[in-house]
Amino acid sequence: MEKKIQLKDELKKIKENIEKNKPLVHNITNYVTVNDCANIQLAFGGSPIMADSVLEIEEVVSVCNSLVINIGTINERTIKSMIKAGEIANIKGIPVILDPVGYGFTKLRTDGVDEILSKVKVSVIKGNISEIKGLLKGNNNINGVDVSTTDKELTVEDIFEIAKKVSKIHSCIVAVTSKVDVVTDGERVVYLSNGNRIMSDITGTGCMIGALLGVSLGGNRDNLFMGTIYGVGMMGVCGEIATKTMKKRELSTLKNNILDKVGSIKFEEFLEVLNYEYE
Amino acid sequence: MEKKIQLKDELKKIKENIEKNKPLVHNITNYVTVNDCANIQLAFGGSPIMADSVLEIEEVVSVCNSLVINIGTINERTIKSMIKAGEIANIKGIPVILDPVGYGFTKLRTDGVDEILSKVKVSVIKGNISEIKGLLKGNNNINGVDVSTTDKELTVEDIFEIAKKVSKIHSCIVAVTSKVDVVTDGERVVYLSNGNRIMSDITGTGCMIGALLGVSLGGNRDNLFMGTIYGVGMMGVCGEIATKTMKKRELSTLKNNILDKVGSIKFEEFLEVLNYEYE
Amino acid sequence: MEKKIQLKDELKKIKENIEKNKPLVHNITNYVTVNDCANIQLAFGGSPIMADSVLEIEEVVSVCNSLVINIGTINERTIKSMIKAGEIANIKGIPVILDPVGYGFTKLRTDGVDEILSKVKVSVIKGNISEIKGLLKGNNNINGVDVSTTDKELTVEDIFEIAKKVSKIHSCIVAVTSKVDVVTDGERVVYLSNGNRIMSDITGTGCMIGALLGVSLGGNRDNLFMGTIYGVGMMGVCGEIATKTMKKRELSTLKNNILDKVGSIKFEEFLEVLNYEYE
Repeated sequence: MEKKIQLKDELKKIKENIEKNKPLVHNITNYVTVNDCANIQLAFGGSPIMADSVLEIEEVVSVCNSLVINIGTINERTIKSMIKAGEIANIKGIPVILDPVGYGFTKLRTDGVDEILSKVKVSVIKGNISEIKGLLKGNNNINGVDVSTTDKELTVEDIFEIAKKVSKIHSCIVAVTSKVDVVTDGERVVYLSNGNRIMSDITGTGCMIGALLGVSLGGNRDNLFMGTIYGVGMMGVCGEIATKTMKKRELSTLKNNILDKVGSIKFEEFLEVLNYEYE
Repeated sequence: MEKKIQLKDELKKIKENIEKNKPLVHNITNYVTVNDCANIQLAFGGSPIMADSVLEIEEVVSVCNSLVINIGTINERTIKSMIKAGEIANIKGIPVILDPVGYGFTKLRTDGVDEILSKVKVSVIKGNISEIKGLLKGNNNINGVDVSTTDKELTVEDIFEIAKKVSKIHSCIVAVTSKVDVVTDGERVVYLSNGNRIMSDITGTGCMIGALLGVSLGGNRDNLFMGTIYGVGMMGVCGEIATKTMKKRELSTLKNNILDKVGSIKFEEFLEVLNYEYE
Repeated sequence: MEKKIQLKDELKKIKENIEKNKPLVHNITNYVTVNDCANIQLAFGGSPIMADSVLEIEEVVSVCNSLVINIGTINERTIKSMIKAGEIANIKGIPVILDPVGYGFTKLRTDGVDEILSKVKVSVIKGNISEIKGLLKGNNNINGVDVSTTDKELTVEDIFEIAKKVSKIHSCIVAVTSKVDVVTDGERVVYLSNGNRIMSDITGTGCMIGALLGVSLGGNRDNLFMGTIYGVGMMGVCGEIATKTMKKRELSTLKNNILDKVGSIKFEEFLEVLNYEYE
């Protein structure tokens, strides 16, 4: 109980810091969901910059409060920008959020992420369980950029164990999106069980979580763990509220409603709907 | 009459196969309409992957059930990926859908498509009549990526004749989007007359048909002709229903309503609205 | 008063010319807001083409009525296409609209725009005050791609003085978007005070003004000044109407409503809401 009150207070601070800092977030991301990522960052109180030319990366990162790297449509040009951006972010001391979309699926993605992780200290890795499991190596259950069938059967305890290991290997927070989202820094763990499976029938709900993290961490450099919980929780809560009003499988309306909610939700409503367990 | 009943039964199988297979579709497409293409594939029961680096094409195509190539914003880098993807798709035996956006408009587009068609066996070419006519060569009536004025005056019989020729040249199904959509495999032909002209005031309605074909053909490798009719018909039907509720020229709402409808339409409603002639 | 009546008559002609010409607009723009830019051009009565390969630029520009260059996600490849497109546009005599997103922010952007301006005669430069001020050189107040804090304190008179200078240096119309939008050709000036600050919480409202200009100037080569006022005014008016019906900070709905309004507004309503001063 005490812990719960404490978490609420901490989340409130996270929210206030976003408002105070209006974090500038540098995103090197994919061209599929980039518009939604920019809009959700604005809705969440941040200010997005999308720039991917290696020629300007240094200047862009230098003025930003965080960096989001999403490898959704990675190519031989952008991978270089991602690494350079990460290195500068490390020098500047700003948080780096990595979304290793499709890790384990292709050599380009796997090698690319491995290279990023070998050269860049990331603050948070956010992925689905197949991607996170892949980071432990030896995982061959791939299903494109989605979760593989066998991975769908993992329990929340399994997921935590995997996430904890990855967290320790890379000394970072790991956020696994799943039926129950698992956020751990290797010691602490929070389970977030909001949202609805139908959200995965919209492209980019995963990318948008990374985008939210860019804002919440960019404004909260001194409390990255709680910042991660706030960002991941925000998507779950807003997605859950939006799906509740949905009568038919109207997915474009659902996406609009999620984005609308992120920009208009009151903190009290967020807390009320947020469903979490803190160990 | 008998043919009509048969077509309905066949379309039902197409629909059931999509549900059963949840086809994974690899898309190499343009950055203008890519988000809508991904979302309409999800709404339609498929699972989209967008990846265009030549370094990962082989692995991506290998796990997919179909490949959609759309040259909307083609460049010197992506054309190579398109050709390689097509070649792998042929080896794996999965359907290839080609949308030759702006064929005949620029040398890059014309040569690019010619090269694709010389190296890749495509299952369906989907385009507007100017593009399809261009494939017969000698067509100089271009209007950017839209249909030229003189081509707008072609009758549905003219369109069928042109489509049939292109179909025979490339041994593939040809789907021409027009006031009346014409789908032919060189022998059979189906005329689909749903939709509404105002749909062309939304960017990407054409691209989205290609995206739908990726799903319907990906789940129905043994009945590509009927799969094409289902995909083309779905856009016309959903567009028609969405425009009917439109009172003002509110195009963003119209786009949302089309996407909503693709994700929520019942098969019975689809059949009821579908307006077709089968020769 | 007389001037006001005259302006209304001129704007009416601008509108009628768009309808008559349905201008074909070539856009080399960023991948963040490109879909909204294409859709707003269609809504506004234009016909967008997005193409950025240097291999087809010449053919594309040649059939178009205007060219919009937006450097939002510029890179080493696209800068070359932008310059070539501008040069061809000059030869063909079609208007060039330049949106120097983030000018002064990075060397790539500053040098890129400087090179464009040294090789291409542009018709309109549209930017926020930090970007326009940057074009006078010696401005170091940068805040990524947004307006810097000190620049926010400039008066409308300051803004006009800066815009006038830039206009004279580059012999072009300058449109500065701000609380009050300032449009000047170096001699005449029009102040437009529609819109609402919350519009900047949607990505791309600035880019969409450039997109609108592509349409209005493409259809009105003989009256670029009034064409600019119509394009800039349209965004302000539609944004203002859309925000008035907004009860909560629902930004996705707001964006949809703006796009809906651009496609459905009656000219009389536009004039009624348009708030301007003409010196």
